[in-house]
Amino acid sequence: MTRTRRGLPLIHDDDIRRAAGRLRPDADTEEVTARVAWSVLIEPGDAVAGALIRACGATDALRIAFGQTGLLSSALVPPRALHEALARWLPRAQPRAVLDALISAQEVGARVLLPTDDLWPRGLDDLEAHAPVLLWSRGDPTVLGALTAAAIVGARAATSYGEAVAGEIAGDLAARGTLVVSGGAYGIDGAAHRAALGSGGATAAFLAGGVDRSYPIGHQQLFERIRQAGVVLSEVPCGSAPTKWRFLARNRMIAAASLATVVVEAGWRSGTLNTAGHASALGRPLGAVPGPVTSAASAGCHRLLREYDAICVTDARQVRELWGEDDESEQQPHPAIDHDRTRLLDALSIRSPREPIDLARRSGLSVDRVRALLGVLDLEGEVQQRAAGWVRSP
Amino acid sequence: MTRTRRGLPLIHDDDIRRAAGRLRPDADTEEVTARVAWSVLIEPGDAVAGALIRACGATDALRIAFGQTGLLSSALVPPRALHEALARWLPRAQPRAVLDALISAQEVGARVLLPTDDLWPRGLDDLEAHAPVLLWSRGDPTVLGALTAAAIVGARAATSYGEAVAGEIAGDLAARGTLVVSGGAYGIDGAAHRAALGSGGATAAFLAGGVDRSYPIGHQQLFERIRQAGVVLSEVPCGSAPTKWRFLARNRMIAAASLATVVVEAGWRSGTLNTAGHASALGRPLGAVPGPVTSAASAGCHRLLREYDAICVTDARQVRELWGEDDESEQQPHPAIDHDRTRLLDALSIRSPREPIDLARRSGLSVDRVRALLGVLDLEGEVQQRAAGWVRSP
Repeated sequence: MTRTRRGLPLIHDDDIRRAAGRLRPDADTEEVTARVAWSVLIEPGDAVAGALIRACGATDALRIAFGQTGLLSSALVPPRALHEALARWLPRAQPRAVLDALISAQEVGARVLLPTDDLWPRGLDDLEAHAPVLLWSRGDPTVLGALTAAAIVGARAATSYGEAVAGEIAGDLAARGTLVVSGGAYGIDGAAHRAALGSGGATAAFLAGGVDRSYPIGHQQLFERIRQAGVVLSEVPCGSAPTKWRFLARNRMIAAASLATVVVEAGWRSGTLNTAGHASALGRPLGAVPGPVTSAASAGCHRLLREYDAICVTDARQVRELWGEDDESEQQPHPAIDHDRTRLLDALSIRSPREPIDLARRSGLSVDRVRALLGVLDLEGEVQQRAAGWVRSP
Repeated sequence: MTRTRRGLPLIHDDDIRRAAGRLRPDADTEEVTARVAWSVLIEPGDAVAGALIRACGATDALRIAFGQTGLLSSALVPPRALHEALARWLPRAQPRAVLDALISAQEVGARVLLPTDDLWPRGLDDLEAHAPVLLWSRGDPTVLGALTAAAIVGARAATSYGEAVAGEIAGDLAARGTLVVSGGAYGIDGAAHRAALGSGGATAAFLAGGVDRSYPIGHQQLFERIRQAGVVLSEVPCGSAPTKWRFLARNRMIAAASLATVVVEAGWRSGTLNTAGHASALGRPLGAVPGPVTSAASAGCHRLLREYDAICVTDARQVRELWGEDDESEQQPHPAIDHDRTRLLDALSIRSPREPIDLARRSGLSVDRVRALLGVLDLEGEVQQRAAGWVRSP
């Protein structure tokens, strides 16, 4: 601890710098090292660290925090807040822990994403002082380059109804290029990831623990599939346990990294409502999928509709509408057109040829409308003209 | 017709006056006769008739309409509108039809409710010129004296889910004194009426045809039960067929007579949405019960939530909340969230005792904060101190 205060070995240790260089040879080693150090020092969402880093960069923030430029600190953060923050950071200010984080990452092939990277999810910046200092990633981070991203989240104790609807929505979104963001949990999260992968689309899982851990253990295979075709992300270093606090903090990233958050199933006091709360706080559109009122697994969704002004969504098209995308081509065909067509086809016979005037009487359409529709149906091969009039193709 | 114009026998005929007097010996015979005449002359919601009647009373409105005070008419209603209205009223201006309406009512024991009656549903007045001129009733009109009334309506082609939820909600509402208003149709309407009766509460069915008719015929027995413990109402005279127009017009009364309208199930283009539209137009709260997104019978409800700003309701308590009734005792307590507490409990083990400095590192809290929180948790019995440190209570 005394050494830390003097030489700042958290980032100036040679072993640490070499390991950081190996992890991100393309980036500024000092910046990588400093952010890795912060990711070891703090619990997710530490606003004092966030404010310091935003104000003067990760490296200088460390110097300020650990006393090398003590005077500056009080101008950025109230002295008492910094004092309290130091009290919680110091127990973790071990160079060994920083080195361990880097080595563990290398061992599992994890990479580090920095806020300055092109692939950094820009939405995370809206978390301001609560934004993650970096992201540990495994898999293919280029999927983060998708133009649109939607969070599909929900209960672990999902019903088959919920899993089916989550799969339907996530699969459709992913098939049309939207990154499906979720938390890798059992139930809705898993169904969303699986459907995105199944439709050949992209998916990202934000984990509460380190990316070296498969939690829940039953999703080991799913995480492997996500790492092959998508990406697994976490703000805490490898080896970190997925504690309850980290689950809550992780939810803010899911909401911030997505254009909209959709809750598929959630109990009355589900942790998913926490993600929904983050989406609302960030001004992101919040969707809720309704379900039977007799299903406890939908109670949280109905609560979101009632108390959080969530928007009722029932399919992927309505999810895209949350961020203003309008699938005009998919909209229901004008009923009048279908109607006339049906009425004319009803009026036609396969065997007896009929003249337009007869068809008009039978269908209740005008003779002009009948003639126009017959032309269209002829091109489509639905009708044929005979000497004595028109017949329907068999 | 010529006689009508001269002597106004629609209301001055002795037989008619005697029959009206028998039907409502307690009311002003001329007023009863005039309103019965109007109920025969017009189709529901005739705004020209409504405006005339509101401006100068039912009797004078008849005199004005049928030419005895021709000059006055143009000041109240644009001459062209009155001209068009007369063209539709004249074919029906038969004293015999008025007498028939009165006699048929007497035969089935129907009564007449007037806007001046205490039991007249006051909400109907909000329909202004579109308000019914009277209500024909069978059963016990005193149930209309309930302090609160809720419309529970929905699809004829309801699912067992929808009927169960409608029954649950209507039964609970009726058991606590709310009049359950509906339309007597198959499906949701029937389930609502039945549940209200089943819970010993009150219910009112607004019909599209005359109260002497059982439509739909399969509800003959249900209507009999409603007449015993509730009331059946209609604005059209006995003998009138339930036409499509009258169904649509009937819906406005269901919405207006209720403090709130709740749609339980409805197809995407259900006629029930018409009732919902009336509720909105009247500024009445509109509730929609969600259901599985995979159920076509709930598509209209989800549409109401998305497009009509309907409020998601899942039980009777939430229906009562629509008009501001607050069942405070039933409300769920707000969960108190203490982040530090969560983080410390995360860091504790049930088996391995841990020192405060270790807990500080694991939780990312300062040692002081850990010590303080341990004290609180100890008092609450959540943690225990051992020789080697603290454990979480099993």
